[in-house]
Amino acid sequence: MSHTLGEIAEAIGAELHGEPGHAITGVAALSSARSDQLTFLGNSRWTRHLSATRAGAVILRHNDLGGCPVNALVAGDPYVAYIKAARLLHPEPVAAPGIDARAVVSPRARISATASVGPCAVIGEGAVLEDGVVIGAGCVVGDNARIGRHTRLVANVTICHGVVLGERVLIHPGAVIGADGFGLAREHDRWLKIPQLGGVIVHDDVEIGANTAVDRGALEDTVIEEGVKIDNLVQIGHNTHIGAHTAIAGCAVIAGSVTIGRRCMIGGAAALAGHIEIADDVVITGQSGVPNSIREAGVYSGGIAAVDNRTWLRNMVRFRQLDDMARRIRALEERTPAVGKRKKRASRSGRRTDRRK
Amino acid sequence: MSHTLGEIAEAIGAELHGEPGHAITGVAALSSARSDQLTFLGNSRWTRHLSATRAGAVILRHNDLGGCPVNALVAGDPYVAYIKAARLLHPEPVAAPGIDARAVVSPRARISATASVGPCAVIGEGAVLEDGVVIGAGCVVGDNARIGRHTRLVANVTICHGVVLGERVLIHPGAVIGADGFGLAREHDRWLKIPQLGGVIVHDDVEIGANTAVDRGALEDTVIEEGVKIDNLVQIGHNTHIGAHTAIAGCAVIAGSVTIGRRCMIGGAAALAGHIEIADDVVITGQSGVPNSIREAGVYSGGIAAVDNRTWLRNMVRFRQLDDMARRIRALEERTPAVGKRKKRASRSGRRTDRRK
Amino acid sequence: MSHTLGEIAEAIGAELHGEPGHAITGVAALSSARSDQLTFLGNSRWTRHLSATRAGAVILRHNDLGGCPVNALVAGDPYVAYIKAARLLHPEPVAAPGIDARAVVSPRARISATASVGPCAVIGEGAVLEDGVVIGAGCVVGDNARIGRHTRLVANVTICHGVVLGERVLIHPGAVIGADGFGLAREHDRWLKIPQLGGVIVHDDVEIGANTAVDRGALEDTVIEEGVKIDNLVQIGHNTHIGAHTAIAGCAVIAGSVTIGRRCMIGGAAALAGHIEIADDVVITGQSGVPNSIREAGVYSGGIAAVDNRTWLRNMVRFRQLDDMARRIRALEERTPAVGKRKKRASRSGRRTDRRK
Repeated sequence: MSHTLGEIAEAIGAELHGEPGHAITGVAALSSARSDQLTFLGNSRWTRHLSATRAGAVILRHNDLGGCPVNALVAGDPYVAYIKAARLLHPEPVAAPGIDARAVVSPRARISATASVGPCAVIGEGAVLEDGVVIGAGCVVGDNARIGRHTRLVANVTICHGVVLGERVLIHPGAVIGADGFGLAREHDRWLKIPQLGGVIVHDDVEIGANTAVDRGALEDTVIEEGVKIDNLVQIGHNTHIGAHTAIAGCAVIAGSVTIGRRCMIGGAAALAGHIEIADDVVITGQSGVPNSIREAGVYSGGIAAVDNRTWLRNMVRFRQLDDMARRIRALEERTPAVGKRKKRASRSGRRTDRRK
Repeated sequence: MSHTLGEIAEAIGAELHGEPGHAITGVAALSSARSDQLTFLGNSRWTRHLSATRAGAVILRHNDLGGCPVNALVAGDPYVAYIKAARLLHPEPVAAPGIDARAVVSPRARISATASVGPCAVIGEGAVLEDGVVIGAGCVVGDNARIGRHTRLVANVTICHGVVLGERVLIHPGAVIGADGFGLAREHDRWLKIPQLGGVIVHDDVEIGANTAVDRGALEDTVIEEGVKIDNLVQIGHNTHIGAHTAIAGCAVIAGSVTIGRRCMIGGAAALAGHIEIADDVVITGQSGVPNSIREAGVYSGGIAAVDNRTWLRNMVRFRQLDDMARRIRALEERTPAVGKRKKRASRSGRRTDRRK
Repeated sequence: MSHTLGEIAEAIGAELHGEPGHAITGVAALSSARSDQLTFLGNSRWTRHLSATRAGAVILRHNDLGGCPVNALVAGDPYVAYIKAARLLHPEPVAAPGIDARAVVSPRARISATASVGPCAVIGEGAVLEDGVVIGAGCVVGDNARIGRHTRLVANVTICHGVVLGERVLIHPGAVIGADGFGLAREHDRWLKIPQLGGVIVHDDVEIGANTAVDRGALEDTVIEEGVKIDNLVQIGHNTHIGAHTAIAGCAVIAGSVTIGRRCMIGGAAALAGHIEIADDVVITGQSGVPNSIREAGVYSGGIAAVDNRTWLRNMVRFRQLDDMARRIRALEERTPAVGKRKKRASRSGRRTDRRK
């Protein structure tokens, strides 16, 4: 796979300063790119490395053009332009259409002639694979599941019965879509399993990471809207609804019946309690616990970051005394005569505390 | 699958007010149920929706009977009655007995004639599948594992060698039961692997979620007692013992050699340190870290819930000054003459602090 | 498999006090070992159980020799000596060389004659399996992956295209090595996927737990150095580099582009933010969040351990008032006349606070 700089400039909408016929076969880092490779300068922190590059061409901002010793592609956002070039030069592998002889496909499944089904994949009764679908080795697609055009299950993915995937969805190995939600009711000290009768609807252009689990709904469906990106080892509980273009980083856990807005960013290992709502454009930083709804866009954080163990132990002891410390401050304030300006500050402080209660 | 209201009333122990011959084919939510569907009113918050329902029947409390425009089934606990009806109307799919031609079964495995083994499942030497066992597509059952009656592995489940599963156990896709525990000893700056020679014993009526891992014991067994329910992506370390009817929510991590009592509830993403004991009837809320044993029933919590990032940053700085703040309060108390009633309060407060140290 | 005490003593470098010809078939706990089993006394807490043991022999320290009623093997570190004996007596199962008839191996893969490929395993084009490699049932090895000598994939493991595994690597079921990293850039409110063109390099003697995910690099490789031990359900982000002999416990999440030193210990459910560096010999305790680099060896901790829910709720309210409490202490200090020694203490305290800011 090779493209000329002229082709690349046109494809990514950049302005070429150099040899249009120069052939590029791939992308690499600024410091290691060879003369048949393309690189980029995204951040002026790296400008000092520019003069030493041996890349075939560098994508950069107009400001950095002067210092570039090789061909240059000028772009408003060099990183986005680089990504587009990388996608052009390294396209997703195309699987040969057809059903591998060692796949196991129900005679009552409906498989497009342009779909690809790998060895040891199992496709259930009534399942539908649309045009260009790629089912990798070892995947299991349950009865009556529907897989939209050009969706790809990489390998060892499990799609449970009746799950619906949109178009251009990409699901990484070990992910499980549509297992039963964790629905239990207590009766006489035992757990009664609540049948999980809903499904999972995954819209177009969603990506789901390795070993992530998305549960089916109890009665209604679990819904992942278009363009949502989910990292590895994430748990999505039943009946949860995730708004379009939200991104969820690794090991986050979203409990059941949560509604997340559009364009949110949920950090790694964050934990959202059940039955809450998160507004559009909310950013939750890594490992934050979210017990209640968040109604306004913004950045939210929780937890206590690590420090050296001795300091932490000392402050942990104090944390357990916090309520007592607050009472002692109040007692001191009551018995300390305040005068003039100081008095005002103290009472303002008191009001602020009350307001936060 | 269709049942009359008369049949349903009898099966779930409810009192029918309406047409015994009315046919019901499934369950649905109060707002969307059709005339051939059953719904329930579990919570008086939803009573205002009752008058508009078009369901075939509503399971409800006696108090709500007056406002019900359709057939009603009166039950003491409408939710539990609903679950029983749902299980009656939506039974687990029954797999056809027999070994799929594309399964790989050791000639030295012992498979009941009523067991079902799906395509691309692999059953090892000496493994035993009892009556009514269902092994889904892509599951691997290791040598000498024993699977009890009517236990079901949904798909792509791995049961390692020698693991013993009881009856009516349900294991969701991607779960791994009996991988080696994380047993290491240090010798000259390298890790020496401790052979993991124990097994895993899973008792009857246990449910294990998607991509959950339960490790085998080092010398003795890891034990999951009857009726335990484990959600997705949970880690259970080696030699851990989980008491009957305990429920563990998604992404919780239970380290090795932990003993958990009966009827506990462990919240999502909670983390229990190794070698601790948790009493019966303990509730640990989501994302709590538990470094020490908990000897008494009750609700336990940890962590710092998320707030807006600016407030959090400010309080995080203060958290690191907590020990200093406590010393400054003490210093203020020493130099502030306390009088009368206030003095008593301050000293009581001091005692409380000491007691908590 | 049986060894005499004489053979065992020589193999583990212990001093035998007893019958050299006594046959041992396995290891067991001190309290349950039979006369053909070996046990150990690692900790003097258990010395009181020594007199009642019915083991064939006990590995112990010289000090405990007097109280031993059976054969004894004296060792400087009884636990390490026990582990070596256990490995001798319970060797890893040896898989028969050869490709199972139900495996699916690309004609363009290169498989050593001494490698073993189990049923329903799938080996891609250009993949290389060196001598003694064991690929368990249901594993998928992607195109052009290289698996070093005596490396074992237990079952249902996914190795993505181009991943390189060293020698004697052990990977437990459900692990996924080399899925795409979570690389996204935002363009007009949508996510643009950054092609993940790097690989994963896993060096010799690494162990990777069940359902763990190690992502491939974006441009460069993700690297796991020799002797690293990773527990279950761990997430390792793209471009991360983990130094030799580091151990990472269950459910830890290491974001992308993290550099971890040698001989570190990362506790269960710990979360490391992206683009940070951790020095050699750092210990991070369980569930700690690490947002910034750690430059010095030592023990680091974060989080708030669980207490009873009422105390926690009270202290959580106070935590949100911390900044206010700190201001009120400062106000009290300003309006409280300090005298003599007390004044000095207060001002020292103030300096300490400032230093910590």
